[in-house]
Amino acid sequence: MTNALRIIPLGGLGEIGKNMTLYECGHNIVIVDAGMMMPEHDMWGIDMVIPDYTYLREKADMVRGIVITHGHEDHIGGLPYLLKDVVPAGTPIHATRLACGLIESKLGEHNLLSRTSLKPTEPGEAFRLGPLEFEFLAITHSIPDGVGLAITSEVGTIIHTGDFKFDYTPIHGGPPDFSRLGQLGAQGVLALLSDSTGAERAGYTPSEQIIEPALDQIFREAPGRIIVATFASLLSRVQQVINAAQRHGRVVALAGYSMLKTAEIARDEGYLDTPPGVLVDLYETRKLPEDQVVIVTTGSQGQPEAALARMAEGSHRQIEIKPGDTVVLSSNPIPGNEEEVARVINKLFARGANVIYPPLAAVHVSGHASQEEEKLMLSLTRPHFFVPIHGELRHLHAHARLARQLGIPDENIFIMENGSVLELTEYSAEVVGKVASGNVFVDGAGVGDIGPAVMREREVLARDGFVIAVVPVSAATGEVGGKPELVSRGFVYMREGQELLDRAAERAWQALKTGTARKSQAISERAQETLSRFFYEETGRKPMVIAIVTHV
Amino acid sequence: MTNALRIIPLGGLGEIGKNMTLYECGHNIVIVDAGMMMPEHDMWGIDMVIPDYTYLREKADMVRGIVITHGHEDHIGGLPYLLKDVVPAGTPIHATRLACGLIESKLGEHNLLSRTSLKPTEPGEAFRLGPLEFEFLAITHSIPDGVGLAITSEVGTIIHTGDFKFDYTPIHGGPPDFSRLGQLGAQGVLALLSDSTGAERAGYTPSEQIIEPALDQIFREAPGRIIVATFASLLSRVQQVINAAQRHGRVVALAGYSMLKTAEIARDEGYLDTPPGVLVDLYETRKLPEDQVVIVTTGSQGQPEAALARMAEGSHRQIEIKPGDTVVLSSNPIPGNEEEVARVINKLFARGANVIYPPLAAVHVSGHASQEEEKLMLSLTRPHFFVPIHGELRHLHAHARLARQLGIPDENIFIMENGSVLELTEYSAEVVGKVASGNVFVDGAGVGDIGPAVMREREVLARDGFVIAVVPVSAATGEVGGKPELVSRGFVYMREGQELLDRAAERAWQALKTGTARKSQAISERAQETLSRFFYEETGRKPMVIAIVTHV
Repeated sequence: MTNALRIIPLGGLGEIGKNMTLYECGHNIVIVDAGMMMPEHDMWGIDMVIPDYTYLREKADMVRGIVITHGHEDHIGGLPYLLKDVVPAGTPIHATRLACGLIESKLGEHNLLSRTSLKPTEPGEAFRLGPLEFEFLAITHSIPDGVGLAITSEVGTIIHTGDFKFDYTPIHGGPPDFSRLGQLGAQGVLALLSDSTGAERAGYTPSEQIIEPALDQIFREAPGRIIVATFASLLSRVQQVINAAQRHGRVVALAGYSMLKTAEIARDEGYLDTPPGVLVDLYETRKLPEDQVVIVTTGSQGQPEAALARMAEGSHRQIEIKPGDTVVLSSNPIPGNEEEVARVINKLFARGANVIYPPLAAVHVSGHASQEEEKLMLSLTRPHFFVPIHGELRHLHAHARLARQLGIPDENIFIMENGSVLELTEYSAEVVGKVASGNVFVDGAGVGDIGPAVMREREVLARDGFVIAVVPVSAATGEVGGKPELVSRGFVYMREGQELLDRAAERAWQALKTGTARKSQAISERAQETLSRFFYEETGRKPMVIAIVTHV
Repeated sequence: MTNALRIIPLGGLGEIGKNMTLYECGHNIVIVDAGMMMPEHDMWGIDMVIPDYTYLREKADMVRGIVITHGHEDHIGGLPYLLKDVVPAGTPIHATRLACGLIESKLGEHNLLSRTSLKPTEPGEAFRLGPLEFEFLAITHSIPDGVGLAITSEVGTIIHTGDFKFDYTPIHGGPPDFSRLGQLGAQGVLALLSDSTGAERAGYTPSEQIIEPALDQIFREAPGRIIVATFASLLSRVQQVINAAQRHGRVVALAGYSMLKTAEIARDEGYLDTPPGVLVDLYETRKLPEDQVVIVTTGSQGQPEAALARMAEGSHRQIEIKPGDTVVLSSNPIPGNEEEVARVINKLFARGANVIYPPLAAVHVSGHASQEEEKLMLSLTRPHFFVPIHGELRHLHAHARLARQLGIPDENIFIMENGSVLELTEYSAEVVGKVASGNVFVDGAGVGDIGPAVMREREVLARDGFVIAVVPVSAATGEVGGKPELVSRGFVYMREGQELLDRAAERAWQALKTGTARKSQAISERAQETLSRFFYEETGRKPMVIAIVTHV
């Protein structure tokens, strides 16, 4: 009897299977990717979001290995948390060389290298984890060395694309292995799990090469310094800027912690070609004529702590933006970051820089397949079952629509939820259950200790602040001994608000004096009610009100 | 000697002259538009943002009138605040009929109708306010009856476009008055102030008419109810849905407070054509076959309190979304709303609805001119000076680039800031100063009482919550009398956090016992320092810590 294969997507804020997918067969689990997400706007104070590992924690002894498709944070950022207390020490991690370099650096920062067994694996290479045979398939994406996976189990072969686009002329490494995908399709693919990020975008995503003429024009025309902001992991873009700098007689300095770190790893691993003399220290650029300088920096998403935002704010220690500077945002805002990116662009303009960004010039292309490439992936692999992943529900539905257009019957398309278990046999596919899933918040040193209750409190505090009333109660008689002392923050401006607080204290005192409450609990509840009502009447606001009884 | 004309853009979150522009000539001021903005994500708890009226308050006796270009909130939403305590009662307000209806309804809600003197004015009509001659110019926008302004002063004629696009075949009313614009251009335009919102978008904005075939296809194919979400003010879209419903044998119900209110005003004023029987009450739709029902609703921006979000959440009292429903988002997310809109779409899919939205179908077009239309406006009016307005700095720069391409010399283009004063004579234009400007926050009943200090407190509270320590101090000796009592919210989950708070109280008690502080101020500072350090070490978080000394 053959063992069924169970596929479980886990993790991703609204995106399905974005950060992690489990492949389970008999008493064996292989983890594909282990990423994190940045919090959304209303996840107050949260630093990052990782998948719920409860299911893996329960089945830790079944974990045979971890397979990483590429080195982006949403695919490797959860590894420290996974390795720290979920999977056994020494669980093998298969990844391509660049991803291994990035993982090593990350785990080093968390002092986890001793628990780690990294297995650098080339595109085209195959390996076995438990009963599953894995093959790394060359694809292209916005970081070099991304791979898709061919996963062969007793029931058949699964293709898991990872994040991909089909770039015929990538900057780094070779093109996608179209013929191997076709060969696998001809031999028979049981199921395809394919990236849905771009499923709402018609046509083809252009090759990374189209950036080059846009950069050349900018480099030709810029009268002074050129500052290019992009993703640190988008090494092909960094390479393109370095190449353009060389063509136009400029040197390049890197700015921003992650840019420096990633570039160092990439140079070590041979993913960044930097001829002698072209890279200089940021400090050195001050001594050079401005029309010989290019700065490549982080912060293209408008992150307030990143180098570009600090330049825009005028708070960067080494770079002051001024008229004559040309700033290029070689990126698009990730959904949710539009406001922050717009502010940075406006502030750069306000400092006199010329700012160039899409769609004003072709200085960025997506790393994800558009509809025609998604159709090509479906057509090459000809899967019996289709599971759109890596996208919000809206993207999965858009991707499913394409699959139906290509003749895949509706009953063979599975739009999954995180945590849902898809069970595959040689002939069938069925959702058979659901495991623990959801988002775990990382806040400071805390992992998972912040839940909906604290989040609701932060929301109330963010909206209207708080008022604390310290109510003096006689220890002897249990009677309220005087006006409460009120302290507020985030509610009204203290100077002008003092008069309001004085009146509120008086009102509370009147209510407590005439009240019959004797127990602390009852007194503080009456104080809270009175004050909440008073503040709402007076200000239309609903601050959090907490009364603390002190015995005097 | 002629009086110079002074133009002062005011108001708009990062956008210049979005909500208000002042035209000042001698001792006369005319206010063009009086709008409000929705707050950005980090404007914690703020309900809306209005311009700083300080300058107007100082010069209230100079105000000759208010001119409204169209009835959108970002052009009329500030009127209640302006009329309440800034401009004299009875200041005439000129607006087209529909805008008058919307203004009347808004001012009625604020009990301000008695202070108001509305002057309904038709496109093409002219009137005088002080020394300035105004003419309403027919343009098209995403609300019927929008106008641009020709403003004739002693020094020359100014064209102020308002929000516009050039729609040759609008749904409501006539097309823009191209020939009058050309005539004014031929006679000589001193300055053009033109809408820059779409200055980053190449090409032409399509006509509202292109929605029709997309709606027809959806109405033909939808198996059950159709729910269309759009802006309440986008009456032409509501009309198009009503027309499509009639063609396909469906009735229409309206959902959402602002949709019902706006539609009522529009019907009264003749801007919504609703043949007998086509409009039904939302409650009625339950009794009808589902393939005969269309619901038009608010909430296309993902606003959590609006009808569509409540349907998506499953908390709408009358409409439960289910498989077979088709939901159409006839809108695009306004920048900053992407996350909220995406969530609503995903939740609708999760309930089994088929959701249709741009770019999947041509169910929305912008209300703002794209680059080719902006060039057409510049070419028709041939201004001597050009002032891009209505846009962020990035949009003004993009618009200025177009003007340069059309031969307007750089020195005749003025990229303004809010509050900057542009002084025009017959021959010259110059920025001559700056008046009070900026954003005033409306929070509950408070206008302008929330400033940066309260905002920073809310930010800290939103991120990590707070801890209050009530420190008992002997009234007799001034010595700390015991462990402080700690209360926290938004910091750690109380049940698991209690142990942490207990240890913190112990730590604070140790620090205070051994300290030499006797004054309340010194004691509370020492408690705050000790606790802040403790919490950061233990949790990596920085809650707001406040120590309150109580004398026992």
